[in-house]
Amino acid sequence: MDVLRYRPEPAELSWTFGGVPPVRTIRPGTLLEVWTEDAFGGNVRGPEDRISRTIDPRFLNPQSGPFYVEGAEVGDTVAVHFVSIEPARDWGVSSTIPFFGGLTSTMRTATLQPALEERLWFYEVDAAARTVTFRAAHGNHTVALPLDPMHGTVGVAPALYEVRSSLVPDAFGGNMDTPEMRAGTTCYLGVNVEGAMLSLGDGHCRQGEGETCGVAVEAAMDTVVAIGLIKGVATPWPRLETDSHIMVAGSGRPLEDAWRVSHQDLVSWLARDFGLDHLDAYQLVTQACECPVANVVDPNYTMVTKIRKAYLPKASIYRDAHAELTGLGKAYLSG
Amino acid sequence: MDVLRYRPEPAELSWTFGGVPPVRTIRPGTLLEVWTEDAFGGNVRGPEDRISRTIDPRFLNPQSGPFYVEGAEVGDTVAVHFVSIEPARDWGVSSTIPFFGGLTSTMRTATLQPALEERLWFYEVDAAARTVTFRAAHGNHTVALPLDPMHGTVGVAPALYEVRSSLVPDAFGGNMDTPEMRAGTTCYLGVNVEGAMLSLGDGHCRQGEGETCGVAVEAAMDTVVAIGLIKGVATPWPRLETDSHIMVAGSGRPLEDAWRVSHQDLVSWLARDFGLDHLDAYQLVTQACECPVANVVDPNYTMVTKIRKAYLPKASIYRDAHAELTGLGKAYLSG
Amino acid sequence: MDVLRYRPEPAELSWTFGGVPPVRTIRPGTLLEVWTEDAFGGNVRGPEDRISRTIDPRFLNPQSGPFYVEGAEVGDTVAVHFVSIEPARDWGVSSTIPFFGGLTSTMRTATLQPALEERLWFYEVDAAARTVTFRAAHGNHTVALPLDPMHGTVGVAPALYEVRSSLVPDAFGGNMDTPEMRAGTTCYLGVNVEGAMLSLGDGHCRQGEGETCGVAVEAAMDTVVAIGLIKGVATPWPRLETDSHIMVAGSGRPLEDAWRVSHQDLVSWLARDFGLDHLDAYQLVTQACECPVANVVDPNYTMVTKIRKAYLPKASIYRDAHAELTGLGKAYLSG
Amino acid sequence: MDVLRYRPEPAELSWTFGGVPPVRTIRPGTLLEVWTEDAFGGNVRGPEDRISRTIDPRFLNPQSGPFYVEGAEVGDTVAVHFVSIEPARDWGVSSTIPFFGGLTSTMRTATLQPALEERLWFYEVDAAARTVTFRAAHGNHTVALPLDPMHGTVGVAPALYEVRSSLVPDAFGGNMDTPEMRAGTTCYLGVNVEGAMLSLGDGHCRQGEGETCGVAVEAAMDTVVAIGLIKGVATPWPRLETDSHIMVAGSGRPLEDAWRVSHQDLVSWLARDFGLDHLDAYQLVTQACECPVANVVDPNYTMVTKIRKAYLPKASIYRDAHAELTGLGKAYLSG
Repeated sequence: MDVLRYRPEPAELSWTFGGVPPVRTIRPGTLLEVWTEDAFGGNVRGPEDRISRTIDPRFLNPQSGPFYVEGAEVGDTVAVHFVSIEPARDWGVSSTIPFFGGLTSTMRTATLQPALEERLWFYEVDAAARTVTFRAAHGNHTVALPLDPMHGTVGVAPALYEVRSSLVPDAFGGNMDTPEMRAGTTCYLGVNVEGAMLSLGDGHCRQGEGETCGVAVEAAMDTVVAIGLIKGVATPWPRLETDSHIMVAGSGRPLEDAWRVSHQDLVSWLARDFGLDHLDAYQLVTQACECPVANVVDPNYTMVTKIRKAYLPKASIYRDAHAELTGLGKAYLSG
Repeated sequence: MDVLRYRPEPAELSWTFGGVPPVRTIRPGTLLEVWTEDAFGGNVRGPEDRISRTIDPRFLNPQSGPFYVEGAEVGDTVAVHFVSIEPARDWGVSSTIPFFGGLTSTMRTATLQPALEERLWFYEVDAAARTVTFRAAHGNHTVALPLDPMHGTVGVAPALYEVRSSLVPDAFGGNMDTPEMRAGTTCYLGVNVEGAMLSLGDGHCRQGEGETCGVAVEAAMDTVVAIGLIKGVATPWPRLETDSHIMVAGSGRPLEDAWRVSHQDLVSWLARDFGLDHLDAYQLVTQACECPVANVVDPNYTMVTKIRKAYLPKASIYRDAHAELTGLGKAYLSG
Repeated sequence: MDVLRYRPEPAELSWTFGGVPPVRTIRPGTLLEVWTEDAFGGNVRGPEDRISRTIDPRFLNPQSGPFYVEGAEVGDTVAVHFVSIEPARDWGVSSTIPFFGGLTSTMRTATLQPALEERLWFYEVDAAARTVTFRAAHGNHTVALPLDPMHGTVGVAPALYEVRSSLVPDAFGGNMDTPEMRAGTTCYLGVNVEGAMLSLGDGHCRQGEGETCGVAVEAAMDTVVAIGLIKGVATPWPRLETDSHIMVAGSGRPLEDAWRVSHQDLVSWLARDFGLDHLDAYQLVTQACECPVANVVDPNYTMVTKIRKAYLPKASIYRDAHAELTGLGKAYLSG
Repeated sequence: MDVLRYRPEPAELSWTFGGVPPVRTIRPGTLLEVWTEDAFGGNVRGPEDRISRTIDPRFLNPQSGPFYVEGAEVGDTVAVHFVSIEPARDWGVSSTIPFFGGLTSTMRTATLQPALEERLWFYEVDAAARTVTFRAAHGNHTVALPLDPMHGTVGVAPALYEVRSSLVPDAFGGNMDTPEMRAGTTCYLGVNVEGAMLSLGDGHCRQGEGETCGVAVEAAMDTVVAIGLIKGVATPWPRLETDSHIMVAGSGRPLEDAWRVSHQDLVSWLARDFGLDHLDAYQLVTQACECPVANVVDPNYTMVTKIRKAYLPKASIYRDAHAELTGLGKAYLSG
């Protein structure tokens, strides 16, 4: 079993997809043990910190990577299977940020109203008990929520020579902020440049669907992913697979465009790989899909559309990459 | 136990919320056994029927009601607890409809492209096995999906003297098309006119989240609801309660506005009835909510935001109407 | 020349399109001299008034009408030619209104932020000089803007048995809030119910494109319109004609849907009445249209798309109703 | 007078804002004579060409530049005054492009419908008569439209280390596609990187407001711009100035967000530079602005909000850069 261990030096962090040289080369079939810093660069440490004072906006959401995937060429697909995602510290942090988030005006949804109060919440993470504890700032409500670690961000270099901020989700992946990106999930990303240039970051101890205030329970993570490469198969939008479901993460604005993208690509996928007629696929999705919001706070919004594999014709999905990488992950974990 | 049994004559059906006289008066605390016709008025009966030829658009989505709720005044809230929802026939039907649905241009999202093919799908309903069976029109894929009966439409007369088509969801309820409106759920609706003028219809054997093509597995239903009235408590948007969750169904366009409405009203609810500070409520929702799409096909889109009651401070919700009506429903079912 | 003079009693005002009996019957070819109250029902009279305290939201934007147009049947088109629109008082008023307007969160674009300050502006109207004078509340900036009187609202009863608030613009017309609705313009509205049930109101001394804060320079108006009826010709969306241009006013949300509607209907109009192929019409509109925003503040947003008649093939538009009604108006004015 | 003449070699063209080294350095106060290729790289030459076959999407919309503006630092503003824009050939071309444009589904507004027919239109440009002539493909309608040359694209390198395709409009300028970008206009752009890295291209012989089908009358241009630099003054969104108006070009999705941005920045500008209180500025804009659509077809949509300088308090705008550069341009033109 090939294992690559990588912990970025501060100077190696990146804040974009595309536009930076690779930090390592990785061979498909390899397990990558990677440490990712939290979205605030680890700079928020106490209750008196304030995002708007502590963090330069250029340095929000640092990524570990990019990794040059050996053999990846334009038109291929990289598979990223999350083997495990574990909080690297015993706390996480969330915050309101002025003019950022879903229930405030923003730079884009611009109004003349003042910003909401900037307030920080620290969460205790109990990895053994699998909880992350919310404490109200006012009053005394406390509740232990289930720990459900995930990566807000995973992506490759974009097409059309673009370089995008790590705050952006789009066809290249990026800041999708879906809780579906947890251990056990395989994420398929279309390759736009030689080597794919894969990065990931933005660990969340958990988040609700939509990441309402724009900030989940942010945390550094010790993560293990298994990397696959499907040659000659293109992937237009990030697709996900678990043991039970396939999904598409569509991004755009307005939110119905993100919804349309995720649905249209799921229908195309069912037609291409599962042998369904397009309208039959449209009909089956109509009655059977689940459709949780991912984020309504980033420069593009993201919707996930998912369907149970049990409802579909039998088919080999991405040459059974999910099964293969899951096997690799199990071997590693039991190893 | 007061039980009111009502099966509309064809001439009694209505196609609007508001604007029609009540068919019956109902006393809070009463159980209502009501039959609802399917969204096509029962006129689609065979595979050669076509919605666009068979149905006059004025007569889509007939409602049973309105029911005049005794004592309901402006500023009160009506509680509708779904005790049971059972398909009245052994089949359901879905269809594409020209320029209607989520993956086509429409009258509003207008383009110059031609309509998609109009195609009907009949589903066998096996009430005993609790399945509803999809058969592909092309090829031979067949799958038995779980039967999960629900009402697409439940609502009261709107405010501002308006009368709205039964195709529309909004603050008065209406065509929200959320699968959460199943047996076991209590729906709270703010009263805008004396007597509330409650109607329901649009039974679905099941639907995916979003009702992608615009048409679920449409069916006539034998439904039992328990009716409650909470005096002096206003409800700005439809709210739902189950044994495990509270939810808000927000409607609007674009879809992010439906999302904002459902979130903002959930935060307001947590602040008003659960004693949380507004920003603390915003934060807790950010980490803990679930947010499934309801519909992206109607004149307004609908999003549901839900949170587990276990994560909230203990509180009496709408004077425990859900518990009380659930008890009433159980007595009826065991009766 | 048939002239109908109508000044509503307070008890005759209406606040909806549809749902109210006609105040008068009018024969096509008649001139209607009509007085319209301002959007605040004339109740805002001094600088200390506040909309949110002074006005019950049910009584915003009263309409004069509805007028039963003799002979109008479903599928016909009513033509309303504005002969003259003159402010009935020597002042107009505007105001910010909490959670209403374009640069604030609203009931639909819901956030947790506080409302903007509620502030009133009174404008002096000088009908002789054709000016309406803005005075800043803070500092001493004063400017005489051109008087450009128009009606924010003109419409007929909606289809599908609906009754809509006079705050709403849609396919039936209503609160479109476009400055194009000035003297010299003919507005074509499709008839949805027998008699059409035409109403108008919401006079503005002037407004910018978009009606940014949601409130123009509101004023009661002495208005003269000439009424025409085009039998057997349907009109899907409000269309406007001046001596130089034809236009479509499309309404919906998001704003791009209002834009799409106005463009798609203009292209359809060019194809149906001017003999252009659909794609040629699409191309000509691409290079030649003007596209000013009408409103981004009402329950639906409205966009106007216009094109010069000089750029189009010669054609008889609505059987030359504009020319005929313009002639009628000139005869009246010189009469 | 300093004049820099620049005609790019094919190998010097660029397709992004940011990410490419400068082709020349330019000193503020210099006149730049620049040739720009058309959006199709000059590769569409005959009626049988088809965009989807002839053009690699990576090479759509080539830019001339970037120019390194001497002394430009982050937080400054570059002023680009268009002295003259003249078509370099005697023809222009437009086309429908599959799944691109305003009245079709697209990659983002995704549906299952087929693409519209791909069709090309060639326009004769008569520079002496100042006309550009449309000929219908079907039937025989021909019309000479006014020649109104403009640049669809002008911009600087983006912030946050991003590199954006030349198809994108945003805060850095880019593919705004507003007909206001004609000779006589000064465009102010905020500097995000040292040297600003200014590029321009995408000449249009004319376009309607919105660029409906996504393609204007595309043409290579001989353009002269005068370059200014305003030190220490930041500009959040592209602002424009003519002899009569000031304007803001806001970009985003949905279209109401582009609208909000353009309005909010105009209000901020009036408050910062013209001494108006924010709410007074909001009010004056409400009654006095013009608001034409720029594009509803690009990855972001663009709206322009404009107001007459005559309606505003007297003020020095960007240290009178427009007047100064206009003078420079007149001196150049008078030879």
